[in-house]
Amino acid sequence: MVTWAKELAEVHAKHVLTPWAVQKRASGPMIVRGEGSFLYDSEGNRYLDLSAGLVAVNLGHGKEQVVQAIQQQAARLCYASPVFFHDQRALLAQGLSQCAPWSEGARVFFTTGGAEANEDAIKMARMITGRQKILSLYRSFHGSTLGAGTLTGEYRRFAGEPGIPGVVHFWGPYLYRSPFFSANEGEESERALRHLELVLLHEDPSRVAAILLEPVVGSNGVLVPPAGYLSGVRELCRRHGILLILDEVMTGFGRLGATFGADRFEVVPDMITFAKGVTSAYVPLGGVLVREGLAATFDEQPLWCGHTYSGHPLAMAAGLGALAAYRDEGLFERAGRIEEWLQRGLRELAKQSPLVGDVRGLGAFFGIELVRSRQTREPLSLWHKPLSQEMGWLQQQLLGRGVYAFCKHNVILVAPPLTITEEELQGGLEQLGETLRRLWEEPSFDLRRG
Amino acid sequence: MVTWAKELAEVHAKHVLTPWAVQKRASGPMIVRGEGSFLYDSEGNRYLDLSAGLVAVNLGHGKEQVVQAIQQQAARLCYASPVFFHDQRALLAQGLSQCAPWSEGARVFFTTGGAEANEDAIKMARMITGRQKILSLYRSFHGSTLGAGTLTGEYRRFAGEPGIPGVVHFWGPYLYRSPFFSANEGEESERALRHLELVLLHEDPSRVAAILLEPVVGSNGVLVPPAGYLSGVRELCRRHGILLILDEVMTGFGRLGATFGADRFEVVPDMITFAKGVTSAYVPLGGVLVREGLAATFDEQPLWCGHTYSGHPLAMAAGLGALAAYRDEGLFERAGRIEEWLQRGLRELAKQSPLVGDVRGLGAFFGIELVRSRQTREPLSLWHKPLSQEMGWLQQQLLGRGVYAFCKHNVILVAPPLTITEEELQGGLEQLGETLRRLWEEPSFDLRRG
Repeated sequence: MVTWAKELAEVHAKHVLTPWAVQKRASGPMIVRGEGSFLYDSEGNRYLDLSAGLVAVNLGHGKEQVVQAIQQQAARLCYASPVFFHDQRALLAQGLSQCAPWSEGARVFFTTGGAEANEDAIKMARMITGRQKILSLYRSFHGSTLGAGTLTGEYRRFAGEPGIPGVVHFWGPYLYRSPFFSANEGEESERALRHLELVLLHEDPSRVAAILLEPVVGSNGVLVPPAGYLSGVRELCRRHGILLILDEVMTGFGRLGATFGADRFEVVPDMITFAKGVTSAYVPLGGVLVREGLAATFDEQPLWCGHTYSGHPLAMAAGLGALAAYRDEGLFERAGRIEEWLQRGLRELAKQSPLVGDVRGLGAFFGIELVRSRQTREPLSLWHKPLSQEMGWLQQQLLGRGVYAFCKHNVILVAPPLTITEEELQGGLEQLGETLRRLWEEPSFDLRRG
Repeated sequence: MVTWAKELAEVHAKHVLTPWAVQKRASGPMIVRGEGSFLYDSEGNRYLDLSAGLVAVNLGHGKEQVVQAIQQQAARLCYASPVFFHDQRALLAQGLSQCAPWSEGARVFFTTGGAEANEDAIKMARMITGRQKILSLYRSFHGSTLGAGTLTGEYRRFAGEPGIPGVVHFWGPYLYRSPFFSANEGEESERALRHLELVLLHEDPSRVAAILLEPVVGSNGVLVPPAGYLSGVRELCRRHGILLILDEVMTGFGRLGATFGADRFEVVPDMITFAKGVTSAYVPLGGVLVREGLAATFDEQPLWCGHTYSGHPLAMAAGLGALAAYRDEGLFERAGRIEEWLQRGLRELAKQSPLVGDVRGLGAFFGIELVRSRQTREPLSLWHKPLSQEMGWLQQQLLGRGVYAFCKHNVILVAPPLTITEEELQGGLEQLGETLRRLWEEPSFDLRRG
């Protein structure tokens, strides 16, 4: 048994293959404990979890209701075959259905995570419609299993290529780097919809089973759609009998200041995929919420989806504990207040640092896009390359200052636990501001010359 | 809050999409508790878990060491971003590497389950070899995500078709219904290898990245390879620079009376995929064990694999608890004794029931293949159709007699927890014998006429 920090780090380096990494460069604090908004390493150092892990730990760490639910269920029943009925599964499916935006009712298919959820959603969409094609966005992430990877619209899909057939990527709105050469939000929304309609016509809308998208694009830049865009997509789907699937793996469970992004944007999808926030990531869990009218398809024909861990009792209990905690503390609404703090704090940060090209977000979900020059908007890290030296430096310096933030491409994701206090958040943003100032001044990068 | 059994069942039927089922026919006991070899429903009825869930709960239910590990870790840290190092992850990766069959050492990439593990293994094989094609077996199951589904060689893959390109299915040994028209085990082994070599030559072996197979084919019939087959596959792989990946999701962690099937068959693969038994399914977890010489590929080039829940701290703790329990109770070896009990009990059962066409297995992993006639070997349920009425009846009657067994096609999987007592097992086999007798006599099926 290894107990001391240095040897533990050697064991880790020797035996763990770290995700998405060149292994010899993989390193980091040895995290051993979490409490509220903070993580602690084996040497007692503290890190503010400014991205809630990977935009997942919505309840912060060590939330008592969830911990107790896990502890109690662990003693009662951790696992049984998913062909059985389970009390916790019935109750969580009911609880989630009550969160869904459909008056007709809802049913839930449980998976182990978001990737499986997206794959099962498109399998269902194909079974329901009898159509094959799926449309998803460039600049999106839907998981890294081989099917979900194909749906994904960024470089993490390439290692799985050629992926599954029948997936077509289109461009979504992103005013700061508009694929449609738009001058303002209204134009961006209108042109993005015309682009989507054009793609649909050239793919034959009657062959398209579903359009799958994130209400706010997450790890690819926190891209908030302009007013009218999502309702326009909904209308195109309705007109052509296409199902609208919202990937709410990051946006669900209060992240945008509402139960789901669907609620925040007042758009009614046909299915919602979820993971992460459903248990605050305490136990791996994902799933698909399906509106009753579609779910009923599988009353007569077989549902060809299944996983060993579908409806895992321990995960179900964690989900029930999390739903109770969200409700008791009014956390689905609390992101509205965090949004005010972030708007204020990040605008201030943008004023101070010439590296900040754009700040955007909703609720407790913001992105800070960094550029070498505000004029040219040249990104501080290229989208199709590994993190640039500058972004890597930034992330390391932040850790050294006790702040963890998920950095992807040239964007810092600010997505704290929904339980964060204003003081904790301010402390994190101050460190972020200081780190940006030092990055700007760091002689080896020579950023001041622009 | 719903507390009584009937209403709970209604809630379940109303809101849960049950895996692999025509929903209006989905039903079953409402399982609320597990202890040792038994599950308990909301009305207090007890069920012997004769298939350990889906061949997963190797430690039985409520194993104290794992429950405590989960409870303690839940209070300490449930989740943090997988880019961090974690103490539990270092220790579990070390423990698993010590279980691996390679003197050169090993590293582990963690996933959430077996399907992701198989997908990540073939992604790695493609990155390592620069080749594209993957060979897997007809009559196999490797998961139901869209990539793992393509690897799968039975009907659960069809709903995901067309799947990923580059997967070629070949036939494995199965003497009872020999695809090679063999008369005995020696012939079956030799012909199966000649068939595989022929497929390789027609696919161009220099384009094949990996051969992926289950050491004992699991849910597709518990097919035990004849002597010489697996070592022959290993030799073909060596000759052509093809990686051998063993899917040990069911066979790992003591199921065959050894740590891995690789050990039982004395064959050394290049990678081992695992899930289920690694935590006794208490927390969802899977992964890929990679021998050091191959893992080192990713010291210099990026490993393009990753999942939100990769190396999930709660799952890591459960895995450490499970490894300790296996070791303390000598459970990797105990299946040797269960094998004796099963050999004796199932041969007896075969003598008594004319419905038993074949009994086969190793360790604590046996299959009973049911036929309408021993002469024609006509299966009691067709392989490419849903379970026949007779098999469905059998499963229900068994449940009514307090025994759960996983029935797939025309095969009953007998794969109890490795902790089962001889008395518990005998009790289960008696109920099984009695149920087979009643099935034989059931007038509505008219099986006696053959």
